Amino acid sequence: MEKISQKSENIATPKPKWSWLDGGIGIPQGFRAVGVKAKIKNPDKYDVALVYSEVPAQAAGVFTRNKVKAHPLILTKKHLANGIAQAMVANSGNANACVGKPGDEAAWAMATKTAQALGIKAEDVLVASTGVIGVEMPVERVLKGIEQASIEISQAADSQQAKQAAHQAALAIMTTDLTVKEVACELVTEQGVIRLGAMAKGSGMIHPNMGTMLGFITTDADIPAADLQALLTDAVEDSFNMVTVDGDTSTNDMVLVLANGQAGFQLSPSDWAEFQEMFRAVCKKLAQEIARDGEGASKFLEVKVKGTQTLADARLIAKSICGSSLVKTAVFGEDANWGRILAAAGYSGADFDPERVDIYLGHVLVAKDGQGVNFSEEEAKEVLSQKDISIQVVLQEGEAQATAWGCDLTHEYVTINGSYRT
Amino acid sequence: MEKISQKSENIATPKPKWSWLDGGIGIPQGFRAVGVKAKIKNPDKYDVALVYSEVPAQAAGVFTRNKVKAHPLILTKKHLANGIAQAMVANSGNANACVGKPGDEAAWAMATKTAQALGIKAEDVLVASTGVIGVEMPVERVLKGIEQASIEISQAADSQQAKQAAHQAALAIMTTDLTVKEVACELVTEQGVIRLGAMAKGSGMIHPNMGTMLGFITTDADIPAADLQALLTDAVEDSFNMVTVDGDTSTNDMVLVLANGQAGFQLSPSDWAEFQEMFRAVCKKLAQEIARDGEGASKFLEVKVKGTQTLADARLIAKSICGSSLVKTAVFGEDANWGRILAAAGYSGADFDPERVDIYLGHVLVAKDGQGVNFSEEEAKEVLSQKDISIQVVLQEGEAQATAWGCDLTHEYVTINGSYRT
Repeated sequence: MEKISQKSENIATPKPKWSWLDGGIGIPQGFRAVGVKAKIKNPDKYDVALVYSEVPAQAAGVFTRNKVKAHPLILTKKHLANGIAQAMVANSGNANACVGKPGDEAAWAMATKTAQALGIKAEDVLVASTGVIGVEMPVERVLKGIEQASIEISQAADSQQAKQAAHQAALAIMTTDLTVKEVACELVTEQGVIRLGAMAKGSGMIHPNMGTMLGFITTDADIPAADLQALLTDAVEDSFNMVTVDGDTSTNDMVLVLANGQAGFQLSPSDWAEFQEMFRAVCKKLAQEIARDGEGASKFLEVKVKGTQTLADARLIAKSICGSSLVKTAVFGEDANWGRILAAAGYSGADFDPERVDIYLGHVLVAKDGQGVNFSEEEAKEVLSQKDISIQVVLQEGEAQATAWGCDLTHEYVTINGSYRT
Repeated sequence: MEKISQKSENIATPKPKWSWLDGGIGIPQGFRAVGVKAKIKNPDKYDVALVYSEVPAQAAGVFTRNKVKAHPLILTKKHLANGIAQAMVANSGNANACVGKPGDEAAWAMATKTAQALGIKAEDVLVASTGVIGVEMPVERVLKGIEQASIEISQAADSQQAKQAAHQAALAIMTTDLTVKEVACELVTEQGVIRLGAMAKGSGMIHPNMGTMLGFITTDADIPAADLQALLTDAVEDSFNMVTVDGDTSTNDMVLVLANGQAGFQLSPSDWAEFQEMFRAVCKKLAQEIARDGEGASKFLEVKVKGTQTLADARLIAKSICGSSLVKTAVFGEDANWGRILAAAGYSGADFDPERVDIYLGHVLVAKDGQGVNFSEEEAKEVLSQKDISIQVVLQEGEAQATAWGCDLTHEYVTINGSYRT
């Protein structure tokens, strides 16, 4: 499903290929993961996730741009400063945000407890939280959960049990998510196999520049922290940052990646290119799953914008359309209201000539040169009755293009968010 | 209800005062207005509004910043270039946007028909439309409506009938609006009385920088077009541009003002200050009525931000909170989720220290220094159960302040916008 780069000079050399695997964050060599029930908010939900690398790993992260930053986020940024980490601990049920000193203490307690239980340095533990803002963490319960997780994390007797334990970690970071988001893949090179595993959560409060979104990625590739950071920052721009559910960005969001080198070899330049493709595909897949699971969503929305002068313009337009409440309600209502699509492009801040814009709903051309065409309402209705809706906007300004993902705006969204805290 | 400036040097001089009047856009001397049923979309709805000044008036306008501009808007901007106009004609039921050459022709036909029927210059007619985008105007019906309106506009036998006719004009510009928005007021000076009348429409697709919003203001004051433009541009910033319903700005929006000088005297500098106050109050009142009538709204939301370094920061924060889907759904659900308020401030783009922010719901302090306080859930619930909700955010960065208005996000909003076009 993902485009694999085939820019080979030597067609005779068999090219390495990557492929999707069953499983999640525990798949790469030297990584283990588990989720436990610490009863933080809901007594019967996995709510503490622990991911552990047997050796210190190169580490990188990207974080919310919200001025209001949760306590664990501040700590994690600090712990990432040296580019090394060995464990990631996360909880759902409480965001540990905006509670002052007790919040800083709770985040630090989570790191030290994890370090102590695993016999590693506290500075090598990355901490993440998600849930309601402004309520103090029930720290004791969380720490108990971490203790339990650090015991269970080495108990898997076989790869099937290890997979199940990692699946529990993915369950433990969910809040209003309806689907578990975990992926794994591998790249077969001449020197050996590189694996990548990941899990994410996110469903509402999602918007470019991180909504309440957590992403955790592991790989056994050997990649220096600086390269890992560059790879992540770049991949996030075309994946997580192109998802919009409701325009609200959160205080807690981050995507973290650990690379522990346990595959045991250096990537060649051409393998590195392949690895980058795989890494980007993983980010994109998780981003799409987050959009698909948007709070109350009944439809998945993909907006492709082509032919802008700059990449920034393409992204602006795609995100503006994808985030428009009026477009989202029209998609929900299966109404081919293309005027709203053009209007959303118009207020995106991007520069373009509105009289040279074509709009497609699925395969149906609904507007040409900025004006409506006589399209078949029936065909448009057929497109809009699907669960996956594709909108394509073609401009004539240049060669740049971008894609954004989102979902429709439904009654259910209002219901979910009318009583989230209580 | 509105603050009246009392910065007088000479306390002995009786200050002129302004007050609200019954009536609308037809109230100032030398103006007439009427609405008729042209059957543009709904056969039993007033849908063409005509406002006429007996003499050419000074004129000014502000327009949507959407890159996609409706056909009448382009024409009206052109007709405003010389600062003079004598009539405003508007229709609901069709936006006359994004339909190409026929759209330009339809807007021009509306202007010429109005001019011909009233015996004035086509260049002195301002045209506005609101309704669905991308559908060709039923021009013949609109022109027939204009013809009828230009006959009816001089038929009012007394002030009561004139008031009723102007009320029909206000009805004619409504789309999904549930309330008629018209106001009038007068300023009594030593030289005589100055009157101001206005009507507006707007309910969804409302956002800073004009959502689908039309505003028409008349006054018999004698004000040069340049001063009128400066006054309008300034007043709009703190009124119409501080309203947000769903974040979507439209292709059609404008606020127009005509000043025909028929009061028969020049405003003294102190009267001018008073007139400015009155003008701003009119814009603010219409803006609030638009927010209150937000599509599907069950609650009116006022967000006051105080203590920022710059006015721009205060506006950014107020609008960001007022426009947050999560804040809006929490208000709908009567959930005192102040974390969302702080988070929305955090992603507003404004510069501030999140640890020096206090938040009030009504009179209830819910967060101090960026952290939750132990407030009474009962008291907060009582505040949130009202129809008018006030949120106050107090920062400690400076002296600037701003207020934004909006409404909650409800099931009804989704229903209305899921099937607007069809």
